[in-house]
Amino acid sequence: MQQLRRWRQRDAGHDSDPSFDTPSDPGGAKLRVVPLGGLGEIGKNMMALEYGDDIVVIDAGIMFPKEDMPGVDLVLPDINYLLERQEKVRAILITHGHEDHTGALPYVLPRLNVPIYAPRLAYGLIQVKLREQRMISKAELHEIMPGEPIQLGAFNVEFFRVCHSIPDAMGLIFRTPLGTVVHTGDFKMDHTPVNGVPTDFARLAQLSAEGVFLLLSDSTYVEVTGYTPSEMVVSEALDRIIGNAKGRVMVATFASLISRVQQVIDAASKHGRKVAVAGRSMVDNVAMATKMGYLTAPEGVMVSLNDAKKLPPEQVVLVTTGSQGEPTSALARIANGQHPDIKVQPGDTIVVSATPIPGNEVGVSRTIDNLVRQGAQVLHSRNALVHVHGHAAQEELKLMLGLVRPRYFVPVHGEYRHLVAHAHLSHAVGVVQEGNAFVLEDGNVLELGEEGGKIVDRFPCGHIFVTGRRLRDPSSRVFQERRRLARDGVVVVVLTVGGDGRVLAQAPQIVSSGVIEGKQRDKVLAQGSQAVLDAVKGADEDAPGDWAAVSARVKESLGRFLYNETGQRPTILPVAVEV
Amino acid sequence: MQQLRRWRQRDAGHDSDPSFDTPSDPGGAKLRVVPLGGLGEIGKNMMALEYGDDIVVIDAGIMFPKEDMPGVDLVLPDINYLLERQEKVRAILITHGHEDHTGALPYVLPRLNVPIYAPRLAYGLIQVKLREQRMISKAELHEIMPGEPIQLGAFNVEFFRVCHSIPDAMGLIFRTPLGTVVHTGDFKMDHTPVNGVPTDFARLAQLSAEGVFLLLSDSTYVEVTGYTPSEMVVSEALDRIIGNAKGRVMVATFASLISRVQQVIDAASKHGRKVAVAGRSMVDNVAMATKMGYLTAPEGVMVSLNDAKKLPPEQVVLVTTGSQGEPTSALARIANGQHPDIKVQPGDTIVVSATPIPGNEVGVSRTIDNLVRQGAQVLHSRNALVHVHGHAAQEELKLMLGLVRPRYFVPVHGEYRHLVAHAHLSHAVGVVQEGNAFVLEDGNVLELGEEGGKIVDRFPCGHIFVTGRRLRDPSSRVFQERRRLARDGVVVVVLTVGGDGRVLAQAPQIVSSGVIEGKQRDKVLAQGSQAVLDAVKGADEDAPGDWAAVSARVKESLGRFLYNETGQRPTILPVAVEV
Repeated sequence: MQQLRRWRQRDAGHDSDPSFDTPSDPGGAKLRVVPLGGLGEIGKNMMALEYGDDIVVIDAGIMFPKEDMPGVDLVLPDINYLLERQEKVRAILITHGHEDHTGALPYVLPRLNVPIYAPRLAYGLIQVKLREQRMISKAELHEIMPGEPIQLGAFNVEFFRVCHSIPDAMGLIFRTPLGTVVHTGDFKMDHTPVNGVPTDFARLAQLSAEGVFLLLSDSTYVEVTGYTPSEMVVSEALDRIIGNAKGRVMVATFASLISRVQQVIDAASKHGRKVAVAGRSMVDNVAMATKMGYLTAPEGVMVSLNDAKKLPPEQVVLVTTGSQGEPTSALARIANGQHPDIKVQPGDTIVVSATPIPGNEVGVSRTIDNLVRQGAQVLHSRNALVHVHGHAAQEELKLMLGLVRPRYFVPVHGEYRHLVAHAHLSHAVGVVQEGNAFVLEDGNVLELGEEGGKIVDRFPCGHIFVTGRRLRDPSSRVFQERRRLARDGVVVVVLTVGGDGRVLAQAPQIVSSGVIEGKQRDKVLAQGSQAVLDAVKGADEDAPGDWAAVSARVKESLGRFLYNETGQRPTILPVAVEV
Repeated sequence: MQQLRRWRQRDAGHDSDPSFDTPSDPGGAKLRVVPLGGLGEIGKNMMALEYGDDIVVIDAGIMFPKEDMPGVDLVLPDINYLLERQEKVRAILITHGHEDHTGALPYVLPRLNVPIYAPRLAYGLIQVKLREQRMISKAELHEIMPGEPIQLGAFNVEFFRVCHSIPDAMGLIFRTPLGTVVHTGDFKMDHTPVNGVPTDFARLAQLSAEGVFLLLSDSTYVEVTGYTPSEMVVSEALDRIIGNAKGRVMVATFASLISRVQQVIDAASKHGRKVAVAGRSMVDNVAMATKMGYLTAPEGVMVSLNDAKKLPPEQVVLVTTGSQGEPTSALARIANGQHPDIKVQPGDTIVVSATPIPGNEVGVSRTIDNLVRQGAQVLHSRNALVHVHGHAAQEELKLMLGLVRPRYFVPVHGEYRHLVAHAHLSHAVGVVQEGNAFVLEDGNVLELGEEGGKIVDRFPCGHIFVTGRRLRDPSSRVFQERRRLARDGVVVVVLTVGGDGRVLAQAPQIVSSGVIEGKQRDKVLAQGSQAVLDAVKGADEDAPGDWAAVSARVKESLGRFLYNETGQRPTILPVAVEV
């Protein structure tokens, strides 16, 4: 803890601290650890390991925008660090098939076309994605099995199985000249997972016996004490709910949560029900997972939505998207009575098998309320045990630390406070010495050698926003402008200007959006037009033909008028038209 | 449950159901129960009880806007129902001093100036509020003590003490010709509250012995099993934290959570520390509560922020606002390094003594991360027992039902699903018969008599949004326009029009906000200008001088061009200038 605090203090003085200029130890190459993005969850979407002339990239995922990112569709990691070292990058290693680990590939590959290695299900999902984007022919995509070694420059890489909320999730083992590096990926320690494949403790114990140089471990749920409950708990709950339901059952969950869909299929078939799927991404994923053998259903259990509609309700289970209350999802449309095929019936039992991701709480609440209003009984994470998440809680994180017993530790996949808590945990369990745990931020370069580690660079590593088809820096004026437009609307003032650049004494045209409406609109805008005319008269005298001065006057006078009138400060856009 | 479902089904057929036209039982007046607002939490901000020619109003609060309400400052209940029956309204009864129960008074009183009755602390807070708004001289504001009867038309009213997260919280007892009505207000059952005054079980038991006609009870935490922990748990945690801290301690909480401030003062003075207060609303509330005797501190414990800065850190506790991560609050400014007086020091212990209100999670997370980045240890609801909320959990709700044993039950103060769950609970505990629990929505009129109850009217009772100084209907185009502006920005196209109304073949001026920036801006807008010109040429031929047709063409052609170019669909505002 003291050491942690020390390097934080030291870091604060980055610019003036001469120790940052010390070159790397010339006696031997160092290992560089560089988190590259996660929108607050450090290193979640992408990170890099670098040794000498070789870089391997872990994951290439996207994040979904927060509410203060207006009109942003996706958030990408910033790959400039990699582009500047393009010739060193040997591969991108994908730990599992979730969007926050794979979704950036269509954006990354056109600029950085390196081989991709992914476990089987992720491989399948990435193929679909790249085919949609017509990139599949140019990509070098490899399916990789756990235990199968890959040599990537100085790194000998091996995938190992972990439990997570999608089948075929992997951690990574890197053999480097400095020693073994273990990256857990997203993981938990479920001993009774749905697919029967637990985290590979044996492999980790072997590595530990050989000695592990560095562990990078998932920190998402470090604040949660105890253990994450097993998926078995959810299987039991779904079995009970589907077994006891008198009418139709609908289960909404993440389209990527293939194992949850399996649990639903198992419970449904046990109780003699048929299963139909609704929601585009759920339909696609179920089809793909079935084809690849990750979902299995007894003959005749899976039926089309149309066939399900012809069955009596007590013989039907529907699996849908919409567990996050997303407005265009199947469940939200069902809740609003706007789904073309599915209407809520009294007697329906609806299970929302997910917890709201921060920021989605309000949407999820509204969806549930609308379903209850129509007479459904709704079971969700607050009133039933219908979801467990995919990340290790504190005791599992201790187990991972105790199993691997690394010399150095870099907590990843969490917000800053989570990483700090995880670093403390590594000391508290007596595994990692004070000073050997490093809390990084995206864009920090940690250099590790035999003698220890330090942050040798901090480059500005933000994110890229995808808005429409454009990529933009989050600091773009566009977003500032949108936030202001959202708050107060916009007023456009069109002034006519003579050939000499002087504003003509003609009442300006004013139009607005998002400011005022109805009868008041015309009245206020007409008065505003007069206010502008008065102001402009003055401006013209001070500096004839000076549009910048006129424009400033217009903004100032109309702004004041509108603030007095409405209490708002709309964006004002003056336009000059020469006549 | 069956009964509930039955009336829900019946309600769905409101328009065609002849039973709705049946006049009230002419043999005796009925009691009407009318929730009037709570932004999803039904009846939370305001509700009305009506008997014959008399209406009493319970609370007059505001809600804060959700993220899909752009530029909205406050949300008010819709009081049209009361305005239409103005001569019947006898009083507004305030249960406690929180904003969601008092904040609408400045908006309500100018239109509905009736006497207000409030318990002592709420009375003090309302006085401050009305004085600020220069309304105090016109308002008839009464301080009321528990047990003191008030006759308001047919209603004999008595306040009774409940525990909540502010001192002087009250429930209400109404003696009516039909029997006794109990409204719990916001409550919990803490047996060891900070101020030593628990919920008045004895009074409730007395009423129960006499027989209670109707109970209206807080449903906010009906989904939470067990009991809400006592404030004692928080006192113990704060005592331990402040006692063990080596450096300065800061505690952020709600400015209205006077009892939490008392807990901090108690722990601080026990451990020989001084307490200073930061954040305008916290400073105001602490001053008022101290003056009124709701906060007590040993001589010399309370110091100014300036004096606190001169003390060694281990002798200081700061109490601040900002527990919800509000951007302009003291804690958020401290976290961003922008507070003029308070900088985080290594060794600081910062306690966020609150849970994030849904919608605030992301802001709270960012604030905590920024504090941790600066070297503070941060304790919050996820990693320490530093907050309990003010509402009864399931077992306490059962206790209330079992204590009062009402004939009829109307769950209030919760989202729709909470009310349904609370109605089920009232049956499950065997207190309320099936068919005697009524789940209402804001604007539903429940009529209760000797023979039962039914919803006799459903009027559209929305909310009023305060934006700037204007009150607006939530369905206003202004908000639709703002949402669209936020998503995609705005483009203004100015066309010059000749005296005959024909568009001149002059390239239109185009300006934009929130769409595009930098070098691309000029290029794209110039091309867009050309696209407009081409489109307008056609339009003019079809219908010379028809501005509506031209305007539609401009929107269509420029919209298509910009979508192809940027993937976005900005608001397009065409303007005609006659030259």
